[in-house]
Amino acid sequence: MTDSQKPIGVAVLGFGNVGSQVVRIIEQSADDLAARIGAPLVLRGVGVRRVADDRGISIDKLTDNIEELVSRDDVDIVVELMGPVEPARKAILAALEQGKSVVTANKALMAVSTGELAQAAENARVDLYFEASVAGAIPVIRPLTQSLAGDSVVRVAGIVNGTTNYILSEMDSTGADYASALADASALGYAEADPTADVEGYDAAAKAAILASIAFHTRVSSNDVYREGITKVSSVDFESAKALGCTIKLLAICERLTSDEGQQRVSARVYPALVPLDHPLAAVNGAFNAVVVEAEAAGRLMFYGQGAGGAPTASAVMGDLVMAARNRVQGGRGPRESKYAKLPIAPIGFIPTRYYVNMDVADRTGVLSAVAAEFGKRDVSIAEVRQEGMVDEGGQRRGARIVVVTHQATDAALSETVSALADLDVVQSINSVLRMEGTTE
Amino acid sequence: MTDSQKPIGVAVLGFGNVGSQVVRIIEQSADDLAARIGAPLVLRGVGVRRVADDRGISIDKLTDNIEELVSRDDVDIVVELMGPVEPARKAILAALEQGKSVVTANKALMAVSTGELAQAAENARVDLYFEASVAGAIPVIRPLTQSLAGDSVVRVAGIVNGTTNYILSEMDSTGADYASALADASALGYAEADPTADVEGYDAAAKAAILASIAFHTRVSSNDVYREGITKVSSVDFESAKALGCTIKLLAICERLTSDEGQQRVSARVYPALVPLDHPLAAVNGAFNAVVVEAEAAGRLMFYGQGAGGAPTASAVMGDLVMAARNRVQGGRGPRESKYAKLPIAPIGFIPTRYYVNMDVADRTGVLSAVAAEFGKRDVSIAEVRQEGMVDEGGQRRGARIVVVTHQATDAALSETVSALADLDVVQSINSVLRMEGTTE
Ligand SMILES: NC(=O)c1ccc[n+]([C@@H]2O[C@H](COP(=O)([O-])OP(=O)(O)OC[C@H]3O[C@@H](n4cnc5c(N)ncnc54)[C@H](OP(=O)(O)O)[C@@H]3O)[C@@H](O)[C@H]2O)c1
Ligand SMILES: NC(=O)c1ccc[n+]([C@@H]2O[C@H](COP(=O)([O-])OP(=O)(O)OC[C@H]3O[C@@H](n4cnc5c(N)ncnc54)[C@H](OP(=O)(O)O)[C@@H]3O)[C@@H](O)[C@H]2O)c1
Repeated sequence: MTDSQKPIGVAVLGFGNVGSQVVRIIEQSADDLAARIGAPLVLRGVGVRRVADDRGISIDKLTDNIEELVSRDDVDIVVELMGPVEPARKAILAALEQGKSVVTANKALMAVSTGELAQAAENARVDLYFEASVAGAIPVIRPLTQSLAGDSVVRVAGIVNGTTNYILSEMDSTGADYASALADASALGYAEADPTADVEGYDAAAKAAILASIAFHTRVSSNDVYREGITKVSSVDFESAKALGCTIKLLAICERLTSDEGQQRVSARVYPALVPLDHPLAAVNGAFNAVVVEAEAAGRLMFYGQGAGGAPTASAVMGDLVMAARNRVQGGRGPRESKYAKLPIAPIGFIPTRYYVNMDVADRTGVLSAVAAEFGKRDVSIAEVRQEGMVDEGGQRRGARIVVVTHQATDAALSETVSALADLDVVQSINSVLRMEGTTE
Repeated sequence: MTDSQKPIGVAVLGFGNVGSQVVRIIEQSADDLAARIGAPLVLRGVGVRRVADDRGISIDKLTDNIEELVSRDDVDIVVELMGPVEPARKAILAALEQGKSVVTANKALMAVSTGELAQAAENARVDLYFEASVAGAIPVIRPLTQSLAGDSVVRVAGIVNGTTNYILSEMDSTGADYASALADASALGYAEADPTADVEGYDAAAKAAILASIAFHTRVSSNDVYREGITKVSSVDFESAKALGCTIKLLAICERLTSDEGQQRVSARVYPALVPLDHPLAAVNGAFNAVVVEAEAAGRLMFYGQGAGGAPTASAVMGDLVMAARNRVQGGRGPRESKYAKLPIAPIGFIPTRYYVNMDVADRTGVLSAVAAEFGKRDVSIAEVRQEGMVDEGGQRRGARIVVVTHQATDAALSETVSALADLDVVQSINSVLRMEGTTE
């Protein structure tokens, strides 16, 4: 061990939910951390927006001059916990260019700028770690980049957003509709004042991009991710889900697809999906996260834990920080993957999946055959049809509700079928359409 | 990247379940591996006992001269997949002393010789990786040593032996007794001809020692692990477990305990335990493994997957091999923890736990109070008492069966209570005693 006594200087940018916990651990666990790193870890400063704010706890070293803090000669590692894309990007680039290693929890940034930031880290020969950017406390980045480095990952499917999982779990267990489950989540602090990033799937899409990049050794950005949120999921969907032995989860799915000609493509997508109750993701409730990884040799692995919150996220940040510090003490930086492919992105229409379609139809003979014909025309085979009861209007029987679950077909064939159904005279309304996870029949 | 074209030479020792899969992946994924490592990975030789054996597949490079293979100048990394302790230990030490990095799946060895081997790796400044030694394909070593390096692990509890988990799952779901479940497991290839290492808990104890060492940054060996196997678990226990809303699992538990005076101690233990059905480990069935880690900041994490088998274990070996090779290409070896504590081992009597006691008693008044008095004398409080029916003998009512579940007390107080109960006149037999996991009431 070289220079084992020279301390490692750390700047923490951000003193919010995560930053304050990171600072607490650096201070309270100083001895343990020094033993694990081989040198003391010394906090040089904490960057915030408003130095004068009353934060309820005493903290010196606060500064709003991020640029100056990052540039200090005695700062070796910069921990970025401000979010969102800017000013984080600028601060991280400055840190890397000045030869400092960087740890960040910023998924929004890592999902758009991985290539640029990785290149800057490569040029400066320093570490850039971002374990906390996906699934909070749960180790997923390091298992994917290291433990599975000699295997071939085929698919990653995860529940990576706690807010939407809380809402969907609530709808499932109480029968609540979306609006009241969202209101509950907000009241309990599980949803932010503006929940758009969560409920429209943007947060999950950023994580899907990061997961796809590292799982498939290629560059995938947020914009490459097909995305549907949970705002249209209804209590009727949950009733149908139950009847089908399923629940509904917002999934981030990354897949490596090989065409008949051997061409590799990558798919990254986020949508609410029916999940059979015996699937390991079905039991992941509330604010918990889980990521299922399927690899050729390893088979199916699952990683489960708290996906957000100040302390759990700080745990992942601290793991990265100790590793970056240990690398500095022991000779520079950690081993990393330097060759990234640029595999093409498979459009959603190309993806084989299964659909659940819930529709109201006229109550007359021949309806079912007209409906079935639309599936048949596009080579979509039907796995299950359920008539879920009559639709009444003012005491008048008006029609029937039909739920169809298909076998696997391409998303394009399935969505064309749904469009065609909507145009049929006998179909009064398409109430909802969801994809189904976990079985390939 | 330095020397990116110089190949990394690999010797694989052992061509059995795991070794043959490792060789297959090295050969079939050569291009991918080279891209991820930054240099080609070249197999120099495969060590076996009997070169002449017909192995069903064509493999050149076989040799029974392990010493010579390990010493080859063009071998940079030795992958040891022979087991058991010897000749593996000798081969690994020779490799390390000659400056070769080592990857092994050998839990029996790693649980007794960690200190010696780690020191040899430290002296030679090379890597010694052993992810596959615990829980097969499931990444646990790397998450514990790296992802959680900045957190404080409090407890690890895992199902880490597939054979015993298969037998217990079978007993639970079919009501089979131990002997016939073991026979089934053997017939299906889940249990070896001599199942002692599995059913008596030796294999799980080795893994507990490894987990405790890395989770608590201290040296724990197999001999430090308290161990009970599953041979005495009966179908009656499973009936009682069901009545209590539990199942029974063989658990490997590692705990960090702090005495009132602030003295840190470590406990590592293996025994069959009642696990409440809502505990995440209760649903881990068949040959699957899972490890639950509790850390101060992260909270509870779970890692789940295939804990054994040639291909899954090879996945973990390959991850280590790629990392060791990447380290060689990029500058020597990976970062590691170099300071290990030597925390004292807490004896089993010291451990707070809960007991389930199943006994037959005389069917007369005052029995329950005599039984309860023995618990009370040792300050053990009773959580639940169930009378599970009368015990008949030849049509004659002979006594009653009583099941007691305690609140938490020290293992010493609990086991003394059981001894005292056995001495009571009114107690006809103690049928079984199991500890209970997962609740601390
Ligand atoms: N919270 C979680 O559970 C979680 C989980 C995973 C990842 N993350 C990521 O972690 C990061 C931090 O999240 P958080 O929840 O801790 O955020 P937060 O509570 O809103 O805290 C943000 C902190 O950054 C500071 N900051 C913001 N903009 C700044 C600027 N322009 N200049 C200087 N300081 C600035 C704020 O200063 P003031 O205190 O002066 O306002 C505040 O201390 C985000 O990237 C987030 O996506 C969070
Ligand atoms: N199997 C699993 O699921 C699993 C899971 C985790 C860890 N592990 C560990 O991985 C290691 C290998 O397990 P395995 O199941 O692959 O064992 P295996 O099928 O019994 O194969 C052992 C191999 O090692 C060779 N070998 C044994 N003793 C030798 C000696 N003295 N000199 C030279 N070669 C020798 C054997 O040669 P021959 O072919 O000539 O007999 C055979 O090729 C063990 O340490 C085990 O604990 C196994």
